[in-house]
Amino acid sequence: MKIDVKKCAALLKEQDNILILTHAHPDGDTLGCGFGLCRALLKAGKKARVINSDEIPSKYCYLYGDLPKYDFAEDYIVAVDVATENLLGDLSQVYAGKIDLCIDHHGTNTEYAKYLLLEERASVCELMYDVIRELGVEIDARIADCLFTGISTDTGCFRYASVTPATMRIAAELMEKGADNAYINRLMFETKTKTYARLERLVLEGMEFFCGERVAVICVTQKMYAQTGSNEQETEPLAPMTRQIEGVEIGITLREKPDGTCKASIRTFESVNAARLAKFFGGGGHPQAAACRFDCGIDQAKKMIVEKCGELLK
Amino acid sequence: MKIDVKKCAALLKEQDNILILTHAHPDGDTLGCGFGLCRALLKAGKKARVINSDEIPSKYCYLYGDLPKYDFAEDYIVAVDVATENLLGDLSQVYAGKIDLCIDHHGTNTEYAKYLLLEERASVCELMYDVIRELGVEIDARIADCLFTGISTDTGCFRYASVTPATMRIAAELMEKGADNAYINRLMFETKTKTYARLERLVLEGMEFFCGERVAVICVTQKMYAQTGSNEQETEPLAPMTRQIEGVEIGITLREKPDGTCKASIRTFESVNAARLAKFFGGGGHPQAAACRFDCGIDQAKKMIVEKCGELLK
Repeated sequence: MKIDVKKCAALLKEQDNILILTHAHPDGDTLGCGFGLCRALLKAGKKARVINSDEIPSKYCYLYGDLPKYDFAEDYIVAVDVATENLLGDLSQVYAGKIDLCIDHHGTNTEYAKYLLLEERASVCELMYDVIRELGVEIDARIADCLFTGISTDTGCFRYASVTPATMRIAAELMEKGADNAYINRLMFETKTKTYARLERLVLEGMEFFCGERVAVICVTQKMYAQTGSNEQETEPLAPMTRQIEGVEIGITLREKPDGTCKASIRTFESVNAARLAKFFGGGGHPQAAACRFDCGIDQAKKMIVEKCGELLK
Repeated sequence: MKIDVKKCAALLKEQDNILILTHAHPDGDTLGCGFGLCRALLKAGKKARVINSDEIPSKYCYLYGDLPKYDFAEDYIVAVDVATENLLGDLSQVYAGKIDLCIDHHGTNTEYAKYLLLEERASVCELMYDVIRELGVEIDARIADCLFTGISTDTGCFRYASVTPATMRIAAELMEKGADNAYINRLMFETKTKTYARLERLVLEGMEFFCGERVAVICVTQKMYAQTGSNEQETEPLAPMTRQIEGVEIGITLREKPDGTCKASIRTFESVNAARLAKFFGGGGHPQAAACRFDCGIDQAKKMIVEKCGELLK
């Protein structure tokens, strides 16, 4: 059942012992709104904790490092920034079909939760700002850091077409509440490990163009991780680079998993719907940023997705 | 004489036939506030035009492409985003000592103009927003595009420590007035020519580290331009990349000029004052972004600047 911010806050006020689920391969938005909501609920006198199926990259530790480890039997389950239950990763085996409330911004949300607060804002953190205010919790510097992180990371630091005046004003409010914008943006956008820098160069060197140079594809293989000392956790900044070459309308990043299968991240501009392309292969996402998985290796996946690109660009 | 926004607007209201000077090797901020002011003055019924010593990179053509070519004898000369007269390039031979008004945000401004409006805002465009409002001119979509361009480019798209809540709110206002943030940010930050992409890879491959890896240096030579088909106009995005490697506190970009001498762009974080380092070599700028010129070749310049870095980091 679709609900609004007011109803969402009212539901949360009624509950205690709240478990917050974030999506697998976590990013700044799912973690930022997860821990932002968790902190707000703790401030409101409730028990709450955030879980994820994967290891959380260490650069996000400022979001949660100081939080107490609460152990409690959950009475209420909330998923944030999770468009479909299978994006929960291993957690879906335990929680699929049991989610009470979902707060999301993906137009492709499958409405799997009992209640769904869905607004196609630039990030879920932008929406969470409204929820927390409606909860009546005063936003402090730690909550502000969490929400700013999601707003900034999901918009490529206020770069993408999804940014609205409201996005900018909420970011301004969060900075006034104490969000350390300089620290967060430096950490998220201006800090590369040497191993990642090596991987980036190696991957970009291998960029291939298809469909009259309107499609760019990069591949990240297990061998490349071994060669550079890098790992999958570091690869988040690669996907946006695929659509940066002049004339490219679809940018695809294929990442090989340890089992030889692969995942594709798709980035497009207005001319192509990335979520539609991802959907052909069972994935989903946003109009300009989407993802899907393949049961085959990189070479075959590349062939299949490039073929589909050719059809879409016709 | 230092003046405030009110006095600056009052001075401009009294004048007509206004020539606006922008700095050599122009960037989004000097061009954005130059053409933004020019458009506002034209709207106020005055004659105005913008000039630059160098060719303006074609990606900025949306700032001025529709403006009429005004030819008039100038009665009033305004410099925008120009910290010292020698930054005017060849224009300084004609206009040095004759500048009536300077609008700037560099703490290192040498107060060469008769009147100086100086506020250390994140960009001059942010300050120009206040000036244009004080002029009583309604900001339209074209002016908004100009001002948004400078705010966005001078902050690395709202990324740097110089961004304040006011920066974000003014950007929100400009978006509401019609600034095409998605187009501008895509063009400025998400569009690489293939020639530039090749140059970037070549340059980053040669990155060297000094002073216990706290200093990173990249060199851009004339030979590299020839090898990749790129040119100096495209090199603006390189400088910020030098400080992105974990642990690096000073990033230096050395660009060889056709005559064999070179220029250095310096980027730092809070621990080192970039303007102070540039000043040793006769340059200037901001605490975290500065520049200077060398009369020698790249190798000698590198030796000299790295030595000075070593002293500063002690």
